Amino acid sequence: MSTVTIKLLAEKLQLSTATISKALCDSHEISDSTKKRVLALAEELNYVPNAYAGSLRRNKSKTIAVVIPEVADSFFSLALNGIEEAVLEKGYHALIYLTHEKLDREKAILKELTNGRVDGAIMSVTVETSDADHIREFNKKLPVVFFDRVCNDLDTAKVTTNDFECGYNATKHLIEAGCSKIILLSISNNLSIISERARGFTKAIADHNLNEADCRIIECTEDASCNYELIKEMMLPDNRPDGIIATVEKLTTDIYLACQQLDINIPQQVKVVCFSNQATAIILSPSLTTITQPAFEMGKSAATILLKSLRNNGLIMKEESIVIPSSLIIRNSTINN
Amino acid sequence: MSTVTIKLLAEKLQLSTATISKALCDSHEISDSTKKRVLALAEELNYVPNAYAGSLRRNKSKTIAVVIPEVADSFFSLALNGIEEAVLEKGYHALIYLTHEKLDREKAILKELTNGRVDGAIMSVTVETSDADHIREFNKKLPVVFFDRVCNDLDTAKVTTNDFECGYNATKHLIEAGCSKIILLSISNNLSIISERARGFTKAIADHNLNEADCRIIECTEDASCNYELIKEMMLPDNRPDGIIATVEKLTTDIYLACQQLDINIPQQVKVVCFSNQATAIILSPSLTTITQPAFEMGKSAATILLKSLRNNGLIMKEESIVIPSSLIIRNSTINN
Repeated sequence: MSTVTIKLLAEKLQLSTATISKALCDSHEISDSTKKRVLALAEELNYVPNAYAGSLRRNKSKTIAVVIPEVADSFFSLALNGIEEAVLEKGYHALIYLTHEKLDREKAILKELTNGRVDGAIMSVTVETSDADHIREFNKKLPVVFFDRVCNDLDTAKVTTNDFECGYNATKHLIEAGCSKIILLSISNNLSIISERARGFTKAIADHNLNEADCRIIECTEDASCNYELIKEMMLPDNRPDGIIATVEKLTTDIYLACQQLDINIPQQVKVVCFSNQATAIILSPSLTTITQPAFEMGKSAATILLKSLRNNGLIMKEESIVIPSSLIIRNSTINN
Repeated sequence: MSTVTIKLLAEKLQLSTATISKALCDSHEISDSTKKRVLALAEELNYVPNAYAGSLRRNKSKTIAVVIPEVADSFFSLALNGIEEAVLEKGYHALIYLTHEKLDREKAILKELTNGRVDGAIMSVTVETSDADHIREFNKKLPVVFFDRVCNDLDTAKVTTNDFECGYNATKHLIEAGCSKIILLSISNNLSIISERARGFTKAIADHNLNEADCRIIECTEDASCNYELIKEMMLPDNRPDGIIATVEKLTTDIYLACQQLDINIPQQVKVVCFSNQATAIILSPSLTTITQPAFEMGKSAATILLKSLRNNGLIMKEESIVIPSSLIIRNSTINN
């Protein structure tokens, strides 16, 4: 195996390591004659580039992976459109891998992806992903950008929205509309986005001096029929909430159906806010107040960061992280008429 | 870190690359002790087989492509779940490629896919796909199964639903509910599914002796805001329909919003049926009568046919085609209360 390093090339050519590195990356800052000298020596000494930058340069697939839980949620389908817009612009392809919220599949996908099929990945993790070892392993070889559902202990760029603030604002909105018994319907608390939304919820409850015993976080499952039963039970008269915040889009139908079934009027008896990007929110009965995320922009930004790094050295800085705010769109499900 | 290759393993173990390769494939030609040595070193050095080299060698990537227009439509997201269920069961992977309804992208994707990345494809064509030359070209090398949106002049298996009958039944349902001025909102007539639905519509109009001049087919576009304006114009008093059949899910929101805006009551003034698999159909205002397609089953059947052929000779017979019927689910958008 080669022991030729950038440092050795620098010493032999009496140049700085930065110059060697830039020359190898074909930087515009370096003159053509210097580039030629560097490349000639690198070739002569059979220099093998360090880390993943080199393998990217020599073995580009012009393809990136998008590893996401599902496409049935409109957030992900809109984000995909954003990713593909950015990717197409630069002559890349995006391969879409669905984890179906299973950690095992996420691990298997990442392991397989290190075999040269893609140059990097954009990821939104599963509800089961609590430790990031498998992603860290992948990231030793290929760059990763997270969007929406991130792993905070991995040092790479993350494109997120203001989940804490959204949890806070949704709760505050319900309190201002007269709610005092508010339930947050959560999914796995492993997820960065869900725990942030829950943190915002709890803070708003405390800030507005609501009785904390009346305001609960209820964890839903991946099973739609379970969730429907759970919500129906939650709506029984003795401890019925007067406000519900759903942290995932797919709970909307369960909440509305449970209320229909139990003859509970939205918004008069219970007010409902959902984190949702569904186009049909506006034509529901009643129209649904939503926290609407900048899904397209988040996907596009994540892809732009990844592609920029692929054109340069393959390194991605935590500092490139972006937070793009969501909007609270107030409709009839939270307005007393 | 340098890339660990078969060549490097061969050098380190002083064996031929052919021996390493055979040992890694668990060939009977190689002794168990040699296999053990090779596997131990491969593991130690974290050797990952190169995707392309591997598939060339074995001529199997254990991967299939799913080439579809989009994932924002719930038909395709549900079909993907069906495809992935079948694929996972057999130890395959599915790569998802989105054409965004562009023929150019469909052509480019198929062209790229012939490079050994996948063993076959499941396809639903774009609205622009009127001739099948590019698919025929692909099909000379790799097997294709169509689902939903098919090319009829290509001799391969197709998994479809009973679109003609659904167009007929939706129209008949509206006529029986009292409609006599019915509009079918179509997208591209190139699409097999749309032309079949339109044929069913026309036949039902004729069979029930409706005035054909009052019953029209209007072609919508890919642009949501255009469609909204088109539908609003169509609803002006002088020639307003009393029944609408939308052949694609995404038109639902446009129809409902246009009616809201123009203060037209659904179902009293206009009755609405949509081809849709959206979970929210039941909680719309009013709940929406739908033609609901067996999306999951269609995806699963298409994948099952393709995988069966891959386990055999790669040939797919037209005779393996299946038609899985859809259901008309009657809700409040077509019921006079």
